[in-house]
Amino acid sequence: MSWLTATYLIDARPDEIEARAQTLALEQSVECPLEAIGDRRVLDEIVARVDAITPVAENRYRVDVKIAVETIGGEPAQFMNMIFGNCSLWEYVRLVDVALPQGLSSRFPGPNHGIAGIRTLLGAGERALTSTALKPQGVPVAELARLCTVFARGGVDIIKDDHGIADQVYSPFAERVAACQRAVHEVTERTGRPIFYAPNLSGTPRRLRRRAEIARSAGVRVVLVAPMLVGIPAFVELVEEFPEFVYLAHPAGAGGRIDPVLMFGKLFRLFGADAVIFTNYGGRFAYPPEACAALASAARRPWELVRPALPVPAGGMLLERIDELLDFYGKDTMLLIGGNLLVARDALLERTREYVAKVTHYGSAGIGVHA
Amino acid sequence: MSWLTATYLIDARPDEIEARAQTLALEQSVECPLEAIGDRRVLDEIVARVDAITPVAENRYRVDVKIAVETIGGEPAQFMNMIFGNCSLWEYVRLVDVALPQGLSSRFPGPNHGIAGIRTLLGAGERALTSTALKPQGVPVAELARLCTVFARGGVDIIKDDHGIADQVYSPFAERVAACQRAVHEVTERTGRPIFYAPNLSGTPRRLRRRAEIARSAGVRVVLVAPMLVGIPAFVELVEEFPEFVYLAHPAGAGGRIDPVLMFGKLFRLFGADAVIFTNYGGRFAYPPEACAALASAARRPWELVRPALPVPAGGMLLERIDELLDFYGKDTMLLIGGNLLVARDALLERTREYVAKVTHYGSAGIGVHA
Repeated sequence: MSWLTATYLIDARPDEIEARAQTLALEQSVECPLEAIGDRRVLDEIVARVDAITPVAENRYRVDVKIAVETIGGEPAQFMNMIFGNCSLWEYVRLVDVALPQGLSSRFPGPNHGIAGIRTLLGAGERALTSTALKPQGVPVAELARLCTVFARGGVDIIKDDHGIADQVYSPFAERVAACQRAVHEVTERTGRPIFYAPNLSGTPRRLRRRAEIARSAGVRVVLVAPMLVGIPAFVELVEEFPEFVYLAHPAGAGGRIDPVLMFGKLFRLFGADAVIFTNYGGRFAYPPEACAALASAARRPWELVRPALPVPAGGMLLERIDELLDFYGKDTMLLIGGNLLVARDALLERTREYVAKVTHYGSAGIGVHA
Repeated sequence: MSWLTATYLIDARPDEIEARAQTLALEQSVECPLEAIGDRRVLDEIVARVDAITPVAENRYRVDVKIAVETIGGEPAQFMNMIFGNCSLWEYVRLVDVALPQGLSSRFPGPNHGIAGIRTLLGAGERALTSTALKPQGVPVAELARLCTVFARGGVDIIKDDHGIADQVYSPFAERVAACQRAVHEVTERTGRPIFYAPNLSGTPRRLRRRAEIARSAGVRVVLVAPMLVGIPAFVELVEEFPEFVYLAHPAGAGGRIDPVLMFGKLFRLFGADAVIFTNYGGRFAYPPEACAALASAARRPWELVRPALPVPAGGMLLERIDELLDFYGKDTMLLIGGNLLVARDALLERTREYVAKVTHYGSAGIGVHA
């Protein structure tokens, strides 16, 4: 028998935490009163068990629950169901960690490329990496392609669709991918510097697959996917069917009661994200710096055969903060700065070059506030 | 131009609500500062707009945001992205309602059968309906089939897999569906009473489709799916590809910052659920009665061409509460009682018959506390 440990934060009074923890363990396994179970094996091997209850604040507890691996098989939908299915419905419960027994991680794809693979693709050595976003949705394909040309001339490593750009009439997927890929390709042909356009893959599973095929045919090597919008099982299937893509995972739709450190740093990585975009501290989102550091660390740390994933802080980031951010995150990081480039309007190329120069030369003598 | 209205509850101080609302509108549409946008059409037709801000409690506001329909196309992933993509990441935001402009609902499948279709399938007239669950996961197929026989003899309308039963080694999908379907069929052949086994369909999109095909081949007419576990886009595709199934939507994995009334009563219905399972008030989950009433009402109310969906209150329900529950929900309801039958162990058949009799005769003279 093999068990994984799911860890929850549960709000409860001291006199009710034991009952809440036990109820959660039943709910996340057999979903019925113990007295309804006549099968000894089910009681011994299937019923989840409260392993530890630790107070962490007033009326808040950290609760470790052991869940039988046998209940999961190797499927992501059922894995999510067993760790956060019905108990997601309780307002007072948050899922904060999952520890897998040895070998279980191999049932999920993990990153096919990881940090090392991305560096190889980009020919980037040990420096920090840059990315930006094509914005805003609503502009025609020609404008998105023009932005691609400017960003590519500016030297940004990865130019991704904004995650709101799907397959709308104003920038249909096939036409957009062809035009943006061509625009970037033309620049890289001239400069010799590897730069990649990453289209946003969205849609129902069949459409997702068709779009992935279109992208592959166009020569795309990096794609953007929001796992919680397309659905984790569809994301996993995509990673398995199109292992040649580098996957940037977008956090849209992932808010709720799963801790972001676990969701982006660990689960998205396990499900195949080569790079995980998350909302940086101090931007227009509100994660504290400690959570951002823990997330980046979770994405990178050694974990059986699961390749490290690249942390990509994003969300209202400013060029002025680059040194601070790289001091904080280190070089195994890709920054994602979009809007703060686009506000330059006619000076977009210059501002893009400034962005790339700041990141590329970070830590070199004479450049950056910490030199 | 056409706009939908998404309504959020936003926690904020009076001096910050205006900024939070405007930031949300930008985040849910163009995702960049307005000064980065040079295209007049985007400013006029794509940027989302704050339509109303209404205080509802101290430091809490109801905020209506108009979002351009053009940004959505007809795809469920992009629809969810536009109403609750990035803003799902803000702890202080909840999505509580969505109002669609005329015609937009027709871009999504909606229930293929709805309440009337379920009644026809079950030959059930105007009475309240009954369902139960095969539990616990972990028991072998023969035991699940035995439970099917007992529940079918007891006269329960729909006998569904527990949502934790997927494709584990102890009850593999194909074997289980064949055995449970056969068990129910044998009883209905004898009694002539239409009773249905509803297997749980889970898995990555390809597996989901394969399992749906297996179920269809076995003669299954009703299935259980947890849209938030398989992913909404995969659920929608399933509904479109297998319109002959009656879909029971399970709430597992759907907890978070989308209001349950909206999620289960409106969105699941829009995406094709013929019946929506939700956690009843006073059981082991904690929705207040008003939310349950609003949810049931949202599922049933007239809505363009979207058929009404059947509310299915569930979760720690007791036989003793049947009259109260039917007084509360009315007859266009299917009760789901599982564990409270199974605790009867050797007297399961009798207890099941008691359940069915109580529901079937609800409101008849001389039966029920309110008769």
